[in-house]
Amino acid sequence: MINKLIEKIQKTGAPIVVGLDPMLAYVPKHIQKAAFAEYGETLAGAAEAIWQFNKAIIDATYDLIPAVKPQVAMYEQFGVEGMQAFQRTVAYCHEKDLVVIGDVKRGDIGSTSAAYAAGHLGTVQVGSKSYAPFDEDFITVNPYLGTDGVKPFAEVCKAQKKGLFILVKTSNPSSGEFQDRLIDGKPLYEHVAEKVAAWGADCMGDSYSYIGAVVGATYPEVGKVLRKVMPKSFILVPGYGAQGGKGKDLVHYFNEDGLGAIVNSSRGIIAAYKQEAYARFGAKNFADASRQAVVDMAEDIRGALAAK
Amino acid sequence: MINKLIEKIQKTGAPIVVGLDPMLAYVPKHIQKAAFAEYGETLAGAAEAIWQFNKAIIDATYDLIPAVKPQVAMYEQFGVEGMQAFQRTVAYCHEKDLVVIGDVKRGDIGSTSAAYAAGHLGTVQVGSKSYAPFDEDFITVNPYLGTDGVKPFAEVCKAQKKGLFILVKTSNPSSGEFQDRLIDGKPLYEHVAEKVAAWGADCMGDSYSYIGAVVGATYPEVGKVLRKVMPKSFILVPGYGAQGGKGKDLVHYFNEDGLGAIVNSSRGIIAAYKQEAYARFGAKNFADASRQAVVDMAEDIRGALAAK
Repeated sequence: MINKLIEKIQKTGAPIVVGLDPMLAYVPKHIQKAAFAEYGETLAGAAEAIWQFNKAIIDATYDLIPAVKPQVAMYEQFGVEGMQAFQRTVAYCHEKDLVVIGDVKRGDIGSTSAAYAAGHLGTVQVGSKSYAPFDEDFITVNPYLGTDGVKPFAEVCKAQKKGLFILVKTSNPSSGEFQDRLIDGKPLYEHVAEKVAAWGADCMGDSYSYIGAVVGATYPEVGKVLRKVMPKSFILVPGYGAQGGKGKDLVHYFNEDGLGAIVNSSRGIIAAYKQEAYARFGAKNFADASRQAVVDMAEDIRGALAAK
Repeated sequence: MINKLIEKIQKTGAPIVVGLDPMLAYVPKHIQKAAFAEYGETLAGAAEAIWQFNKAIIDATYDLIPAVKPQVAMYEQFGVEGMQAFQRTVAYCHEKDLVVIGDVKRGDIGSTSAAYAAGHLGTVQVGSKSYAPFDEDFITVNPYLGTDGVKPFAEVCKAQKKGLFILVKTSNPSSGEFQDRLIDGKPLYEHVAEKVAAWGADCMGDSYSYIGAVVGATYPEVGKVLRKVMPKSFILVPGYGAQGGKGKDLVHYFNEDGLGAIVNSSRGIIAAYKQEAYARFGAKNFADASRQAVVDMAEDIRGALAAK
């Protein structure tokens, strides 16, 4: 799957991910209204609204992008019905040949991580039958529990040709509270990055490992250091746009081959129509606004990489 | 909810939690057979099997215990249908007046943690209606993202009178890889524990905070230290039984008032009928075996506390 991700980045010329984090507040009123007319103001109605919202954005952007990153919390908050919308979104993205990064940030002790890995990346056995319940291509994983919490995910990736992005340095303001603390003269995130490089060495695609890392766009100096610590790991970079990062800040997350990073924007793309820059599209044409935001983001990053 | 948890611990005399982690391999064949006869060898069939298994164990133990801890991964692995069984299990435990600790280990940046908090502990708004999708009483939370990743959970707890257990020192073999690393002369887990105490100070029930901590039974010396670092935090102790912990190892997780800790056993109780000690019950009477295992576990811990 890492090979497919790289191929698609090269084909689209856009090392970007659209974050499908459909908060109900982002969904235009006319979509909410239609969904509630059909299902009532229920969890099923909310799930239908976010699904219709996603579908329109996917239809308007899939030819420009290699990958999407649905944030499962935005679905899980609507309960079982929300998880149905998550599953439907993943399946639809596969129909459109998009690489799907499930932003689930799971991580537990060994046998429990194995269950998460089966449900999100692999298959579960029920009697004589086998099912792939959520079937994402990559998921994000929290490293706090160490190697035996991560290994079951890596094993399923090896068997299914899928991949991981392990949290190393997150994009939020208080990420430094624990992640930046010095251990033997180096911040914790660097120790985690060294582990990611070690775990990844055993999980190589053609040119990059399928065990990648999450490093927030909001800490460009850290990105520069971590690029060198994990030369063969793809870096998933959240925090572009709404959280503050810009293309020129992100060039050092990439290797000399122009690869090695993929930059996520969620709100900045899916709620583009709410921004001044795209207000001309109007709420009715929210998906066209998203398409334009993708074009602009890809241009920003391509320009920054060309000027590097 | 922390007050209710304490009341129930005092009423039952059992500071224990039954971990409802229904791997399909634990579910007796006759239950699987009946579920598959009704729903086929499908995800719905698996979900029905784990629900029937849970229900029998809850019916056989609810009067002896204060709380249960369903591990969401064991449901999530069966997709949407599995999440339905999770929800049904939580609701049934509430009918039986049990405190429900959702072992979900979620944690993300602020707005995303807020969505998880709404879905698991709070309510979501859909138009003019409000819903409580999963409605656990406590959940477990991963601290790697720091204060702004934890705060949205704490805020929902404050509004809804619910609670958290934050991962501090986990029970798995490689938990030390990051958690034990020394920062300014103290292990990372101790820094996390200090934060838990600080977050919890603002979230007090009558005698204990509703922001608690997870400290594995497998590291008793660590439990002894952390008990003092977080005097007002309840400690959820996984790793009893199958993972190796015993009652006598756990006395220092408790305060002098005999409170402050609640010990979880999953496999050791729900799959008791598979152990030599309870084999006499047979697979047909698996729930009676679980009841006996609860009686024995409570006795072991009560005895250890009395001998302290």
